[in-house]
This record gives sequence, C-alpha cells and structure tokens, in this order.
Amino acid sequence: MSRIVTVGAAQLGPIALNEPRKDVVQRLIALLEQGAAHGCDLVVFPELALTTFFPRWYFEQQEQVDAFFERSMPGPDTQALFDAARRLKVGFYLGYAELTEEKGRTRRFNTSILVDQNAEIVSKYRKIHLPGHAEHEPWRRFQHLEKRYFETGNLGFGVCRAFGGIVGMAICNDRRWPETYRVMGLQGVEMILIGYNTPVHNPPAPEHDNLSHFHNELVMQAGAYQNGTWVVGVGKAGREEGVDQIGNSIIVAPSGEIVSACSTLSDELSIARCDLDLTVSYKSSVFNFSKHREPHAYGMIVERKGAIISV
Amino acid sequence: MSRIVTVGAAQLGPIALNEPRKDVVQRLIALLEQGAAHGCDLVVFPELALTTFFPRWYFEQQEQVDAFFERSMPGPDTQALFDAARRLKVGFYLGYAELTEEKGRTRRFNTSILVDQNAEIVSKYRKIHLPGHAEHEPWRRFQHLEKRYFETGNLGFGVCRAFGGIVGMAICNDRRWPETYRVMGLQGVEMILIGYNTPVHNPPAPEHDNLSHFHNELVMQAGAYQNGTWVVGVGKAGREEGVDQIGNSIIVAPSGEIVSACSTLSDELSIARCDLDLTVSYKSSVFNFSKHREPHAYGMIVERKGAIISV
Repeated sequence: MSRIVTVGAAQLGPIALNEPRKDVVQRLIALLEQGAAHGCDLVVFPELALTTFFPRWYFEQQEQVDAFFERSMPGPDTQALFDAARRLKVGFYLGYAELTEEKGRTRRFNTSILVDQNAEIVSKYRKIHLPGHAEHEPWRRFQHLEKRYFETGNLGFGVCRAFGGIVGMAICNDRRWPETYRVMGLQGVEMILIGYNTPVHNPPAPEHDNLSHFHNELVMQAGAYQNGTWVVGVGKAGREEGVDQIGNSIIVAPSGEIVSACSTLSDELSIARCDLDLTVSYKSSVFNFSKHREPHAYGMIVERKGAIISV
Repeated sequence: MSRIVTVGAAQLGPIALNEPRKDVVQRLIALLEQGAAHGCDLVVFPELALTTFFPRWYFEQQEQVDAFFERSMPGPDTQALFDAARRLKVGFYLGYAELTEEKGRTRRFNTSILVDQNAEIVSKYRKIHLPGHAEHEPWRRFQHLEKRYFETGNLGFGVCRAFGGIVGMAICNDRRWPETYRVMGLQGVEMILIGYNTPVHNPPAPEHDNLSHFHNELVMQAGAYQNGTWVVGVGKAGREEGVDQIGNSIIVAPSGEIVSACSTLSDELSIARCDLDLTVSYKSSVFNFSKHREPHAYGMIVERKGAIISV
C-alpha cells in the first residue's frame, strides 16, 4: 500500500522590513507555481511568512506592532495566494500574525493555517510554545519579543484529515518540545507541518550557535521517529535585517531520516514524495503506543511546569 | 565552573548461555580496573550484564528462567565486583535480573543499580518500558519475552544525588520514549545512565534493521539535548547465541553531541570527562522549563495510553 502526498518545503530568503506584503505574496505564489509544476499536493511556507520577523524589535507603540498583523485570512494582500492555490490545485501551510476580536477583546496570536487544494482553510493552529521574553532587553543585539507580542495559543495541538491523511501543525519553538509531537502522535498524526524563524545566534546562549542546524534537525528527526510520522520543517533563511536565519528546511520520514533538504539561504523549493503508509510499520511495532506506553509513570509531565529538585 | 565526572562506558561483547556468572564478573572487574587506571569515577555496564540475554528464548519451566535471576545484590557471584569497586574507588551502574519476595509474593524485575565509590548501592531502578511480547511466538527467529518474564517496574523514574550531581537511570527500551528523559528532567537530572541489549534485527519490523544504530543514537541525543543532561548509553555487542547485538555504546553531552563511543563489538571501555556544569546553559536558556513549558497543553500524554483517531 502507499498513499503518496507530494510536499514542497518552500523556504523563504530574507524579507526586508520595508518589503510590501503584496511583493512577499508574489514570492509565495512563485514557489506555489514551482510546486505545481513538480506535482506537489501541498506547499509548506515558514512561520510569519508575510513579513520580516518583527519580534526582533522593541516597538514603543502598539500600532507599530499591529502593522505586521492580518485582520482577516484571506485578506486584501493574501487573496491572490488563495486564488493561485485554487487555480493550481495546490494546498499550502502558511504562518502569519493573527489579530482577532473575541468577545470584544483584541487578541494576537502567532498562527498557521492549512489550506486545501480548493483554497479552503481546513485547519488553524496558534503557537503554544512562545520563546523569548516579554520585556525589552537592550543588552541583546536583537530582541525576541514573542512573549510580549503574542498570547499563548488556545487551540491545542489538534489534527485534521487532509491530503489523504491525518495532518497536524506546529510553529517554530514548538518543535524543540517532545510533548508537541506526542500529543499529535496520540491522535494518530501522519504528517506534522512546522514553519520557523530561527536565528543562528541566540543571545542568551551564544555557546550553542555553532549547533543551530544540528539541533534543528535533531528535534524534528526524533519527533518523527518517536511518533512514526512525517515532519516537514520550513524556515526563513539568510541575513534578514542584519540577523542570520538558519533556513535548514528539511522533510523527515517516519524513520527519522532526512529525505529532502534546502541547500541555499534564499527562496527555494525542496520536494519529497511522502508515503503516509510508511508510518504504519513504526506505529504498529516499536511505537505501538497501546502496547508499550506507560502513562502511569508520566504524571510529572503535566503536574509540574518547571524542574523541582528534591534530592 | 566545572564539575567533572569521568565516566567509562563499559560495553560487553557476547555472553554465552553456558558462561558461568563468576566468569562474567571477572570481565566486569577487568573493565572496572581499566576505568580505574584511566581515572574514572563511574563505570556503566549494560542491561542484564551478568548473563546472556535470556528473553530471546521461550522456556517451559519457570525454574529455567529463574536461573538467570539474582536473589540478592551483592550475591555470591557479584560480591567480587563490589569488593573491586571499594578497592579501586570506582562506582558502577549494573543491570541484572532481580528476583525478590515482597509481601509473600515472588516478583521479577529487569533492574539496574547505582553503586558509589564506597561500593554502597545508592539507587535502584526497575525497567518501566518492557518491550517485546508475553506469549511464545514461534514464527520469530528469536523471541523477545520481556513482557512474560518481568513485571513493569514499580519505582518510577527517580533521581538521586551521586558523583557530585543528580543522576538518573533507565534501561534499554526506556530510551526510545521521550517521557523517560522528561520525567527525570523535571527533577533536574544531570546525567542519565542507560544499559541495553538491542538486536540489530527486530522480527516484527525488519525493514528498520539498517537503521538500528541511527535510532539508538537519535533517541539518546534528543533526550540529552531536550533536557540539558548527559546521557551514557551502554550496550551488549556482537553475535550472542546467534543474535547480533548493536553495541553502539555512546556518551552524549547536554548539547546532544556524541563525545565518546565504542567502536568494536566486544568488551571495550570508552571514556569521557563529563562536566555536569555543561547542563546549565541548556537548563537556563532554551530548556528553562519554568519559563517555556506549557503543561496545560500536554494532558493527553497521561490521559491516554494508545493513539485514538477521532478525525
């Protein structure tokens, strides 16, 4: 048996602070067209794919921040992307900053959507593991103010049926946490889509900078293998407003093997024919959860947030 | 700052079915002496290190199985190992089959102990993730009857203070489950010791046999990085009673990097000077759990054992 989904990892090079949203959308459409030409069913874009990675700056005024947010999806600038998807019959994953009114309150999330080959939004995810900090830290060469500009996602780690399989989403820092993959694995996920913006340099721990690719690959390979799922990880690449982004976009098989990878630091499409049935031999043998998991021993994972040392 | 613990990964080549326990203990002592000569504080032996890996056979009679178990630790055959540890001032991790009477009931566990440089047992662990099957499956070239011969460990994933740091233990299949590392990570673990017996060939999923080293390394590297802890993994190696064991013993830094490895399929000691303070930059930055974990989203990890598909 095989259930092939052909996926394009649509890495983006830098997006300048002053680059108009409409121009970025044209870059996305160009990648979508490449995907269509190569028979892709689905193209995966990075996190916050419509603008520069704005949490790297501290803005005094909320309206400066809000300028990076989408009020509707599709909206005036993104409608063309949906139109292209419908015309090309290629679905997409897109990360963007979402501003929404809920019960009279303005809320802001770091969001991704999954759009099918009819250009319908079939699933939405709001980032749960927000990295960085909430207050201005002028000592850093650049900020990472996601904890300031976004609320914690309130939709959980859900999955949906799409592209002939069970698909889940995560965003950037979510991928470093095994809990992310496991919660979706426990819902039978067969493919997890992850966009990211990861700087090579992490100001609080520069001693790890030379390992940024290794860590990026390690966490997604482990998450794939340990849950018997495909993982598609797509990053922003290259020097964006003076900050180097890792790129390092990869497609990981349920074996944990990297089967496709971008090799530039610019807009690039990397493709894999992903057989969802390759998940079966993992989910039914070594990672047959119902036979081999021992949740009675895992209580601490939900009972405590931080480490507690009592020895 | 640095807190160096010098660790020897004491891989074992095959142990024959008819090899007397006393002879195996002499092999362990030889490795302990090598460790002492190279300044080791701690030497780590594999799982079930005193006998051949007996769950590969189906035995009709319980007394045939029980012949592989220890009734006391130290016992008549293992006392010499404890004496050597005291003499050499080298501690050790040892895996063995434990038979114990508790409340008038005979219980059998796949167990490991941590012994300090005074030859005192400072911690005990009983394997929680028992792999394999409980009934005889004659179609397999060899059995994996851990679910028949052992009870699920009842001591949890604890940690203890030893060798100047916080040390935890796991056994074999435990290492494939991210929950194992996380529960200890949430107790501040700085070094996890893991013995294993892993056949190259897995009868229910032979299509993964060529990846057995990759998977062994992947899970321990991810567990180390994602919890900012050292991981010492030590296997049985070579063809034991017709079954190839992977060996592939490694010492993994909190960065996830392999810093020491055995390269043979026989008795071999691989050494690393492990600085426990290398854990700090991970535990205080990207994996600062109290800042960045989101347990409210992890409930499914303890609420369900197997995957449930509802989309």
